[in-house]
Amino acid sequence: MADRLSEIAALVGGAVLGDSDPEIAGVTNIEDAGPRDITFAVPPHLDKAAASKAAAVIVPEDIASYPKPAIRVANPRIAFTKVLEHFTPPTVVARGVHPAAVVGKDVRLGANVAVMACAVIADNAVIGDNTVLFPHTYVGEAATIGSDSVLYPGVTVYAGCRLGARTIVHSGAVIGSDGFGFVTIGGRHHKVPQVGNVIIEDYVEIGANTTIDRATTGSTVVRRGTKIDNLVHLAHNVTIGENCFLVAFTGIAGSTKIGNNVIFAGQSGAVGHITIGDNCIFAGKAGATGDVPANSFYAGFPARPHKEWLRAEAALHKLPDLVKKIKQLETRLAELEEKK
Amino acid sequence: MADRLSEIAALVGGAVLGDSDPEIAGVTNIEDAGPRDITFAVPPHLDKAAASKAAAVIVPEDIASYPKPAIRVANPRIAFTKVLEHFTPPTVVARGVHPAAVVGKDVRLGANVAVMACAVIADNAVIGDNTVLFPHTYVGEAATIGSDSVLYPGVTVYAGCRLGARTIVHSGAVIGSDGFGFVTIGGRHHKVPQVGNVIIEDYVEIGANTTIDRATTGSTVVRRGTKIDNLVHLAHNVTIGENCFLVAFTGIAGSTKIGNNVIFAGQSGAVGHITIGDNCIFAGKAGATGDVPANSFYAGFPARPHKEWLRAEAALHKLPDLVKKIKQLETRLAELEEKK
Amino acid sequence: MADRLSEIAALVGGAVLGDSDPEIAGVTNIEDAGPRDITFAVPPHLDKAAASKAAAVIVPEDIASYPKPAIRVANPRIAFTKVLEHFTPPTVVARGVHPAAVVGKDVRLGANVAVMACAVIADNAVIGDNTVLFPHTYVGEAATIGSDSVLYPGVTVYAGCRLGARTIVHSGAVIGSDGFGFVTIGGRHHKVPQVGNVIIEDYVEIGANTTIDRATTGSTVVRRGTKIDNLVHLAHNVTIGENCFLVAFTGIAGSTKIGNNVIFAGQSGAVGHITIGDNCIFAGKAGATGDVPANSFYAGFPARPHKEWLRAEAALHKLPDLVKKIKQLETRLAELEEKK
Repeated sequence: MADRLSEIAALVGGAVLGDSDPEIAGVTNIEDAGPRDITFAVPPHLDKAAASKAAAVIVPEDIASYPKPAIRVANPRIAFTKVLEHFTPPTVVARGVHPAAVVGKDVRLGANVAVMACAVIADNAVIGDNTVLFPHTYVGEAATIGSDSVLYPGVTVYAGCRLGARTIVHSGAVIGSDGFGFVTIGGRHHKVPQVGNVIIEDYVEIGANTTIDRATTGSTVVRRGTKIDNLVHLAHNVTIGENCFLVAFTGIAGSTKIGNNVIFAGQSGAVGHITIGDNCIFAGKAGATGDVPANSFYAGFPARPHKEWLRAEAALHKLPDLVKKIKQLETRLAELEEKK
Repeated sequence: MADRLSEIAALVGGAVLGDSDPEIAGVTNIEDAGPRDITFAVPPHLDKAAASKAAAVIVPEDIASYPKPAIRVANPRIAFTKVLEHFTPPTVVARGVHPAAVVGKDVRLGANVAVMACAVIADNAVIGDNTVLFPHTYVGEAATIGSDSVLYPGVTVYAGCRLGARTIVHSGAVIGSDGFGFVTIGGRHHKVPQVGNVIIEDYVEIGANTTIDRATTGSTVVRRGTKIDNLVHLAHNVTIGENCFLVAFTGIAGSTKIGNNVIFAGQSGAVGHITIGDNCIFAGKAGATGDVPANSFYAGFPARPHKEWLRAEAALHKLPDLVKKIKQLETRLAELEEKK
Repeated sequence: MADRLSEIAALVGGAVLGDSDPEIAGVTNIEDAGPRDITFAVPPHLDKAAASKAAAVIVPEDIASYPKPAIRVANPRIAFTKVLEHFTPPTVVARGVHPAAVVGKDVRLGANVAVMACAVIADNAVIGDNTVLFPHTYVGEAATIGSDSVLYPGVTVYAGCRLGARTIVHSGAVIGSDGFGFVTIGGRHHKVPQVGNVIIEDYVEIGANTTIDRATTGSTVVRRGTKIDNLVHLAHNVTIGENCFLVAFTGIAGSTKIGNNVIFAGQSGAVGHITIGDNCIFAGKAGATGDVPANSFYAGFPARPHKEWLRAEAALHKLPDLVKKIKQLETRLAELEEKK
């Protein structure tokens, strides 16, 4: 499979820059691109792409001239994604239930599902149309998986949990494990039954080995369009709004409510029972310890506005100099006092 | 299933407050409670519960009047747990060995066990009475699982490890993986054989995707009654005392000994080869870097007494003001010096 | 199996210290050693080992006298490793494909492999000679596992990923899950196809529940001899050099390049798109936020040279005193000014 550069320009709604119309057989990043590949570049990577082996480069539309054949587009990243999809036909997965899969009683399987070897579906579960269950997935009693979803190998969905349509769950993710709830009587911790569930809405993606605990009662909820990275932990009764990004190692403690379009960077988190407004951003390693108003950019632990954190950090590293300065002030003051 | 409020009051040893005796059909949290549910509330949530749709509320016994039918008890949380258990009959699990399970040679299966589809038990393993192995669990060669325990889907117990009675292990937890031990010779890392095991005592609960490494020699030990959250890591030769809480993302490095009743909050941890006394508490993101005496409340990294940490944090955020103040002092001092 | 101390001394190239030549039947750590065991000790543990129940102790060669029978060697840790290997014959694993394993079409299985119950190998995969796949492992379409490797229970290798020879992968590790890449258009996050793979070179060990994402295009790479602990996360297009140590909870964000012999301690990490030079060390909880030159020892977040970090930390905890001192300076200065 190969296309002329002009054909790819048409595909992404861009304009060819330069006179030649090379044949393009693949798409990849700048470092790996060979003489038949197209790549993309935005500042500050334009020179690096120009010096690469790539046959052509997708560039921003304000680029007037370029040393290589190029396609000018409004958003090179979106165009790159389209080209990736063009050159990567979706994996074909054999449909049907593999003889080594185990399907319980009264399970409702949608049309065109794939239930692969060693997948196990418990009684009364529901699997939507076109959904793919890879090997070693487990769908618990009366759990529901929406249509057009993919559960990669080793995903576990506990009893009663519900996943929406077009969800993607990566290997080892656990949805619906018991919340961490105990009542301590006389020094011993007694388990509080965790009888709620987890609800994952449509278009959510969940990373490898992420864990989402079921609610004590009611539901732990992840709203539509939110994307969760690997090794994230959501505790019982948490609600995550729409279109959030939770990056690796984010931990959200019990009953905390997160608004829409919120970003938690890597190794950040929030304590329990707080509310985070829409459009907030938490820097890496930040830890929210109280309610945070909408549109905040927070950093540090306890998390505070990013500017305050930067100022304090900068001052901290001037401290050793400050200590010296204070000693000098003391000496000068003592001299003055003596002269009296 | 439904009960009169007075029947529930009798169940939890509480007293009905108010004249009515409504029928209660379920139990849940304040937000989700409907007109046939009971919920519970302690300060500062009493008003919120009063304004909810719940039919009745379990409240502390010092509450003299309440706008809704209520039950007064010494500890509303304990009462709530009892009511949860009352309304949630334990899941019935089919007993026996599923035909798609794989059981090795000389395995000893207790009475009334459930070994579900695609569970794999290696040779010489021992499974106690009433214990449930969900699909995709693995119990290694000569490993022992006590009675009345539950291993949720995808739990792995390596060879030779021993779990006590009434343990609960959530999906994806790994018990007995090799400790991270290497000898570096000429820049290359050579594996130190990890020939010890892991011992988990009775009444321990282990969260989803938590990892507990086997000892180099001897045993990594978690003592009775300790509760471990999701995504926790215990390195080789660690000992965790009785009735501890290890919250999500806690990491304890090799050979460290933790006392009884210790709490590690989320994203905290301890370096290797140290000793933490009984009843210590570590705040979120704390990192212990040396021995900590019993009954300490520590925070920060390196972890120090919580009060010291608070004071330093508070001072840090006054630093920019302090810098200004010192500049003013300098100016005033220079003026004085000039006048001499 | 038992040996004379002199025989063990010959095995490790050491010299017996003391007149007796006791029989040694096992090897373990100081605490667990019994009267027929050998252990090892280096300062400051020499006295503890002398007071233990061990029959004999491996000690550094500069020890001239010792209260117990001992073996003097240049490196007690290396000698201990040799004795561990001597007393721990490698586990014998039944070879062949278990009838409950599932092997796809056109799979190439090397000589002497073990494919255990409920392991699933997809079409066109390649498994090298002597390699062991434990139960519940998954090797995806056209993935390659080198010779003499071990995949413990529940390991997932996605389609197209390649592992070298003599690799060890612990339970629950996920290799090749999709990178966390999205293009946001009008507030919605659209998935960027992740069409690259993961390449793990020879002699790499990967800990339990660690996740390594496939590249967007090209490869995420871990070079030979690197050792990765449990619950580590490597994002798409990361490169890790040779002979590194990545300790538990380390997170490396997308496209970052790590040199050779680099150490990331627990709960540390690096942001995306940076370069870390050879031989760098990052302390626990450190977070690199920019390029780091070779041979650096960094700490804190944002990570900076360890000495600077120590100095700032020390000053931080003197801050409350500093605040008092400045108040005193102000008072004294005001008095002087008044006297004018």
